[in-house]
Amino acid sequence: MDIIVSAPGKVILHGEHSVVYGKPAIAASLNLRSYIHLTPTNDGKVSVNLPSLHLKQSWEITDLEKIAALNNDSPDEVMKMIIELVEKNSDLHGSKTQACSTFLYLYIAICGRNRMSSSMKIQLYSKLPIGAGLGSSASFSVCLATALLLNQNMISDELTVEDRKLIESWSFQGERIIHGNPSGIDNAVATYGGAIRFQSGEILPLQNIPKLRILLVSTGVPRSTKTLVANVRDKYNRLHNIMTPVLEAMASLTVECEKLFVKMSSGDESCTLNFTALEEMIDMNQHLLQTIGVSHPELDKICDITKKYGLHSKLTGAGGGGCAFTLLTPNLKEETLNSVIQELKAEGFHCFETDVGTSGVLIETEPPEKIF
Amino acid sequence: MDIIVSAPGKVILHGEHSVVYGKPAIAASLNLRSYIHLTPTNDGKVSVNLPSLHLKQSWEITDLEKIAALNNDSPDEVMKMIIELVEKNSDLHGSKTQACSTFLYLYIAICGRNRMSSSMKIQLYSKLPIGAGLGSSASFSVCLATALLLNQNMISDELTVEDRKLIESWSFQGERIIHGNPSGIDNAVATYGGAIRFQSGEILPLQNIPKLRILLVSTGVPRSTKTLVANVRDKYNRLHNIMTPVLEAMASLTVECEKLFVKMSSGDESCTLNFTALEEMIDMNQHLLQTIGVSHPELDKICDITKKYGLHSKLTGAGGGGCAFTLLTPNLKEETLNSVIQELKAEGFHCFETDVGTSGVLIETEPPEKIF
Repeated sequence: MDIIVSAPGKVILHGEHSVVYGKPAIAASLNLRSYIHLTPTNDGKVSVNLPSLHLKQSWEITDLEKIAALNNDSPDEVMKMIIELVEKNSDLHGSKTQACSTFLYLYIAICGRNRMSSSMKIQLYSKLPIGAGLGSSASFSVCLATALLLNQNMISDELTVEDRKLIESWSFQGERIIHGNPSGIDNAVATYGGAIRFQSGEILPLQNIPKLRILLVSTGVPRSTKTLVANVRDKYNRLHNIMTPVLEAMASLTVECEKLFVKMSSGDESCTLNFTALEEMIDMNQHLLQTIGVSHPELDKICDITKKYGLHSKLTGAGGGGCAFTLLTPNLKEETLNSVIQELKAEGFHCFETDVGTSGVLIETEPPEKIF
Repeated sequence: MDIIVSAPGKVILHGEHSVVYGKPAIAASLNLRSYIHLTPTNDGKVSVNLPSLHLKQSWEITDLEKIAALNNDSPDEVMKMIIELVEKNSDLHGSKTQACSTFLYLYIAICGRNRMSSSMKIQLYSKLPIGAGLGSSASFSVCLATALLLNQNMISDELTVEDRKLIESWSFQGERIIHGNPSGIDNAVATYGGAIRFQSGEILPLQNIPKLRILLVSTGVPRSTKTLVANVRDKYNRLHNIMTPVLEAMASLTVECEKLFVKMSSGDESCTLNFTALEEMIDMNQHLLQTIGVSHPELDKICDITKKYGLHSKLTGAGGGGCAFTLLTPNLKEETLNSVIQELKAEGFHCFETDVGTSGVLIETEPPEKIF
């Protein structure tokens, strides 16, 4: 039976960078989703098709069974053999190698358990920009784990809390192959949806986050999270007395935002006053992020352009390029939105109108081929 | 004998707004100077000419002597009569009334003391934009007090520390007429030059401030200091936990800047590293000021334009319009400076290339008529 699942990306709403210093951050699901369409086959092969990575690859089930037959206690050995198998194909490198390795790892770990030949075709589609700090790999990993676990009847199609725990834990294994030492934030958000607070390695789902409409704007400027984090650390070391209260201000801002979410969920979600308060926090945090030096002229430009239309934006994630988001308030006129999108596009930015705080992994009825 | 004196304006380098919350601020002299040319006459009149206020006015010495003859213990009565005298001329209002009242107050207080008829012509010129938060009235008041005290031989033309104390205290009296409740910062800077730290009402002259070259850029946007201070207070009350550390960061930044000044003065003043550190602080404080909501699109534009040329700017004073300054480093090329000035002018800004941290009140040899 065909299996179709989708999972969201994530955006950091507040607390990027200060989280490195033990402060809280809030991440929310981003309704730009990845989709996996798993089709059982009889050709003795496992095939993957990832159009967004221009990747089409297949492997013989028999080869994979050999790896699966290895002692489960030797995951390093399994991984080594997977990488050898992937690297046989000299066309593969970078994100393609990672995607194949993740897939094969999860396939062998989940489907190999039952020692059954599971010939299948897997198609992955995604609305998420890749490598933009929006959790595209976690979204992929969650879709993959869910589809394979469903295929093996290891979870029910109700996707209960228990099922999701299993999905989260398998997707985290997948993420480890891509990211080495992932925080677990991205796959938690992709699994459960809504929003989470994370602080000092602990992930706490937030109840009752309001569904917020945003415009996600990508600068297309590549950035290195590692370099940006190192630059902030350098400033922190050199200007400790200035940076300490700035990070403290970011922490308080995150806490205030969480309080506001609680208030919005328990009252009138669309109350204009609450949106004004959310916008004020977005502006303040953007300026605090500029203070610690992680903005970028293109990110500043997005903020300036949207400001002209009365909209408020901040960078999200590591900064120094990557993406910003703009809050779209309930009373925003469509023509205003169209104008701002037009101006942003004219400046070379990519715009995605979407929601945050929406569902985590979902079983879909429509094949993604229809959407893409 | 003709007397020609000049006094500088002031800029706040760091600590505007946070100073309202008991944090330290640094103000420095701005080498855009006001000049007074005092010429003794025999026409039995006291005449003032302030071209920048389009103000030409004269009074009969006999009228002024009547006021001066009043008991010195009744300053309120003296002030009342001065205002009556000024308001006789229905053309005068606003800053003209204030300038005339200040002049007459200081004339009567200083020259009236000796009960001698001092017929004179006073000409005031100023390079300082008026009402832009650059201490133009204090600069005027210091020039006036100095010229009158010199005219009455109450101070020596060496302008010793004792002389300057007298100038400062008289100019403060003059400032009170214009500003009601002045902080004393502006006339301290105009009297002593260099830079001062001020905190919770205390003014401390800073030794060894490096002479810094700046571009002062005026937006021409009028602003109300009172409204801006009130807006920050509102944010402070609403978002206390965020604003408290932001103001703390501003305080630390001011302290670090003072430390850097000490370091620059004791070492190589032109060291590039020190200028890089000064620039970093300028950027950080501009962003902190944006965080508390006191910038303005025109101020942001100045920062953006100068940034394109590798220069760093911040607003100075209350913000919300008014002026910004741009640090000009020793290795800046003249052609770069010319280009940035050209672009700023094309955007409608007024640019003043000048120095900060220079001399306080000075006795000049050249008549200002030659300069203006």
